Amino acid sequence: MMDKKIIALYGAVLVVAIVLTVGVTALLMNISDRQREADQYPLRLIEIADDEIDPAVWGINFPVHYDRFMMTQIDGMRTPYGGSEPYDKLEAYPAMVRLWAGYAFAIDHNEERGHYYAQIDQRNTERVQVVNQPAACVNCHAAEAPLLINEMGWAEFNRTPYLEIADQLHFGTSCADCHDPQTMALRITRPALIEGLAMMGIDVEQATRQEMRSYVCAQCHVEYYFLGEDQILTFPWSQGLTVDDIEAHFDMYGFTDWTHAETGAPMIKIQHPEFELSSTGIHARSGVSCADCHMPYIREGGMKISDHWLRSPLHNLNHACQTCHNIPESELEDRILTIQHATAGLLRDTEDAIIDAIDAIVAAIDAGATDEQLEEARAFHRAASLRWDFISSENSTGFHSPQEAARVLANGIDYARQAQLSAVQVLNEIQASGDPVSDSADSADSASADGA
Amino acid sequence: MMDKKIIALYGAVLVVAIVLTVGVTALLMNISDRQREADQYPLRLIEIADDEIDPAVWGINFPVHYDRFMMTQIDGMRTPYGGSEPYDKLEAYPAMVRLWAGYAFAIDHNEERGHYYAQIDQRNTERVQVVNQPAACVNCHAAEAPLLINEMGWAEFNRTPYLEIADQLHFGTSCADCHDPQTMALRITRPALIEGLAMMGIDVEQATRQEMRSYVCAQCHVEYYFLGEDQILTFPWSQGLTVDDIEAHFDMYGFTDWTHAETGAPMIKIQHPEFELSSTGIHARSGVSCADCHMPYIREGGMKISDHWLRSPLHNLNHACQTCHNIPESELEDRILTIQHATAGLLRDTEDAIIDAIDAIVAAIDAGATDEQLEEARAFHRAASLRWDFISSENSTGFHSPQEAARVLANGIDYARQAQLSAVQVLNEIQASGDPVSDSADSADSASADGA
Repeated sequence: MMDKKIIALYGAVLVVAIVLTVGVTALLMNISDRQREADQYPLRLIEIADDEIDPAVWGINFPVHYDRFMMTQIDGMRTPYGGSEPYDKLEAYPAMVRLWAGYAFAIDHNEERGHYYAQIDQRNTERVQVVNQPAACVNCHAAEAPLLINEMGWAEFNRTPYLEIADQLHFGTSCADCHDPQTMALRITRPALIEGLAMMGIDVEQATRQEMRSYVCAQCHVEYYFLGEDQILTFPWSQGLTVDDIEAHFDMYGFTDWTHAETGAPMIKIQHPEFELSSTGIHARSGVSCADCHMPYIREGGMKISDHWLRSPLHNLNHACQTCHNIPESELEDRILTIQHATAGLLRDTEDAIIDAIDAIVAAIDAGATDEQLEEARAFHRAASLRWDFISSENSTGFHSPQEAARVLANGIDYARQAQLSAVQVLNEIQASGDPVSDSADSADSASADGA
Repeated sequence: MMDKKIIALYGAVLVVAIVLTVGVTALLMNISDRQREADQYPLRLIEIADDEIDPAVWGINFPVHYDRFMMTQIDGMRTPYGGSEPYDKLEAYPAMVRLWAGYAFAIDHNEERGHYYAQIDQRNTERVQVVNQPAACVNCHAAEAPLLINEMGWAEFNRTPYLEIADQLHFGTSCADCHDPQTMALRITRPALIEGLAMMGIDVEQATRQEMRSYVCAQCHVEYYFLGEDQILTFPWSQGLTVDDIEAHFDMYGFTDWTHAETGAPMIKIQHPEFELSSTGIHARSGVSCADCHMPYIREGGMKISDHWLRSPLHNLNHACQTCHNIPESELEDRILTIQHATAGLLRDTEDAIIDAIDAIVAAIDAGATDEQLEEARAFHRAASLRWDFISSENSTGFHSPQEAARVLANGIDYARQAQLSAVQVLNEIQASGDPVSDSADSADSASADGA
C-alpha cells in the first residue's frame, strides 16, 4: 500500500524534521555563543594600568559598558525639573540671583549635563572663569584628581588655584573613579568621602557591595565645603546627614561660605546633597542603592550589565522602577511628578519668603540699622537660605525623600518669615525713635541716628 | 524462620500502622469539620430585620465578627500620637485652647476611643452638654441615625437640637451602618457621603467592593460642616479633596464655622479628614482601602474574616502591614513613627506660628486697629488655622500621606507668619500715626484714634 500519497507524506515529515533539526541546532549554537560571550566577558584584551584614567582604554576590555557610558554625552533630555539639558537655572528661577547675591552661583548656574561633561562644563562655567576658585573643585570634576593628589599632596592640591592646574585636566568622570582596574571591584578614590564617613564612625573598608553601590556616588553627590586656608574639601557630617545636623556642624565652627551682598548675613551654600537627602528616604531605608535606580541592570545580547548610561530614572522607568514596582509606566511617572510638583511649589513659596526677608533686611539697613539690631534677622536668613538650598540644589526635586524635603522647606519658610518679622520690627523701632512725625516707611532713610 | 523477633517486629509495625491510621483519620475529620464550619458560616440562625441596629442581635449569626467588634471596648491602647486612650488633648497640646478660642472644641477635646464608644463619648462630651449642638452630630454618633432620618426627614433631623433626641440614642457604631442585613454586602447608610461623592461626579452605586471598603469608613471619617439654617450635614467636596480644594469650597460660600474669640477672624474648624488626606497618599493610590490596614484579614479556627476590632495598625503590625510588607515589625514601627515624629514637629511649629499671629493681632486690636486694617491678618489667620487643623485633627499624624501633610503645614506656617507680619505692620502704623513719642509697643493701647 506504499502509494504516492504515503510517499509524499513521509517526504513532508522528513522535510519538517530536517527544518526543525537545523533550526534547533542553530538556536542551541546561538545560545552557546551567547553563553561563551558572557563567560569570557570581560575579554581582558589588554592590561589596564593602575593610573589609567582614559575611559576609551578601559573600553577596549569593556566595550558594552563603555558604549553605555558614552551615552552620557546625550544632552537635551530635560525632565520637568531636571534631566541633562544645560538650561540656565538663573533664568528659570530668577529668585536665585538675589538668594545667592555676592556668591559665584549668582553669576552662572546651569542644570548639569551627563557625567561625560563633568570636566568640560566645570572648566567653562563663569564661576571658575570670573571667580578665583581653588583646585578643590577638581576633586569631583576631573578624573585626574587622584593622580594630582598623589603628586601634589592633599593640602597643596586643594589650595592651588583652579586655573593654575586647569590645563592638566582632560577627563571628566572615568571608570577609574569607582573601579579597581585589576578586579573591577568598586572602590573609593576620593579622600573626602572616606573622612566624611569616618566622622560618623563608618569605616568604608567594611562596606558591603550594596553599600558601595551608593558610596561611589557619594564621593561627589554630597554637600561639601572648603575648610581652612588650605581649602580642604570636607563633608560636614560630624553630627549626621540631615540638614539640621549639617547646620549644627557649620555652626560649631561658625563657618560661612560667603556674606550675603544685600543683607550682610553669614551664609552657607549647600550643593547637591543627594546622598544626604536620599539617606532619609524610603528607598535607601529599604536597602536600595543609588545604582539600583540610576544604573539598573540591562541585558545586551547574552550579557547582563549595570547600565553605565547614568541618567534620570524618569527617562528609564521600565528598568529603573519596574524591576521592583509592577505598575504601569504612566502611573510611575505620575507618582514621581506628583512628588516633584509638590516640592517645586514649596521651593517657590520658600523663595518668595526669603526674598521678602531680604527686602525687609535691606529696608532696615537703609534706615540705618546696626549689626547688633540685625543679628537675629541675619541668623534667620542664614537658616532659611541653607534649608532652601538643601532642597533646591538637591537633584531629585524632593523625590529622594518627599516628606523630609517638605519638612525642610516648611522650616525654611518659617525661618524666612521670622527673618522678615525681625527686620520689620527693627525698621519700625528705628522709625519710631528717630522720626517722630513719620507715618510711612518711605521716610526711613533719614530716620535713624544708628549708622550701620 | 518465624521466630519471636520477627513476630515482635510485625506487632510493632501493626501498632504504628493503627496509630497512624487513627491519627490521620482524626486529622481528616477535623479538617472536614473546619471546612463544614466555614461552608456553613454564617449559620443564619435568625433572620435579621431591616431596621435591626443592635450589634448583639447580628452577633447571633456572626459570633466571631461580633466578638472582634466588641474588642473596640478596650481602651488605654495609646500610641505616641493616637490610639484609643481618651486622654485630654487640650492638656497635651495647650495651644489648642487658644487656636480654637470661642469654639466648642476649646472646652473639651479628648483623643477618641474605639467604635464601641461612638455614641457614649459623644453624649458625654461637654461640647454637647454646654454648647447647643444640632442633631446633625448624630449622623456619625449613633446607629439610630438612619432610622431617625427616615422618621423625621433629613432637614428636620439635622436641625433638631442634639439634646432633644439624645434619649432616643442607645447604640454607637453598628453592623447596620455598613452592611445589608440580607446579603451582608457593604452599603452606604449616611446621605452626606452619597451627596459628597456626587459633588465630585462619583455615583456610589457604581463602586467596586474595594472602593466600598473605604467608602463605608468615609461616611464619618471626613471633614464636614453644617450648612444653612437646617444645619444639613455636608461634605465640602465640590472642588475636590485636598485642603486647598476644601478651602476653595468654603470660600465660595464665605462660610465660617465660628468667629475667633481673640482675633475676630472668620474661622473654619476641620474635623478628622482621614478619607481626604489618605486619598492623596501612596497607599490609596496603590488601591489599598481603609479596611485593608484597619480591618485586615485574620483566621479564627477554620475561617478567614476581616478583623472587626478596628484600631491603630501600630497595635497590629503583623496583620495590618506584613501582609504586603515583608519587613520586620520593629522596622515597620520605626518607619511609621519616623513619619509621625516629623509631622508632629511641624504641627508644633505651626501652633507656635499661629499663637504668634494671634498675639500680634490681639496687640493690634488693643491698639485700636479697625476691621479694615485687620482684614488681611484675619484672612491669613483663617487660612493658617484650617491647614493646621486639617493635619492636627486627621487621625494618622501624617502617616496617611506624609509629604502632603508636611506640604499643608508648610503653607500653614507661611500663612500664620504672614498674619503676624500683617498685624505687626498695622500696629506699627497705628503707633507711628497716633503716638509720636512712643518707642515701644507698651504705649499702643492709647495710641490710635481708630476704635475697633
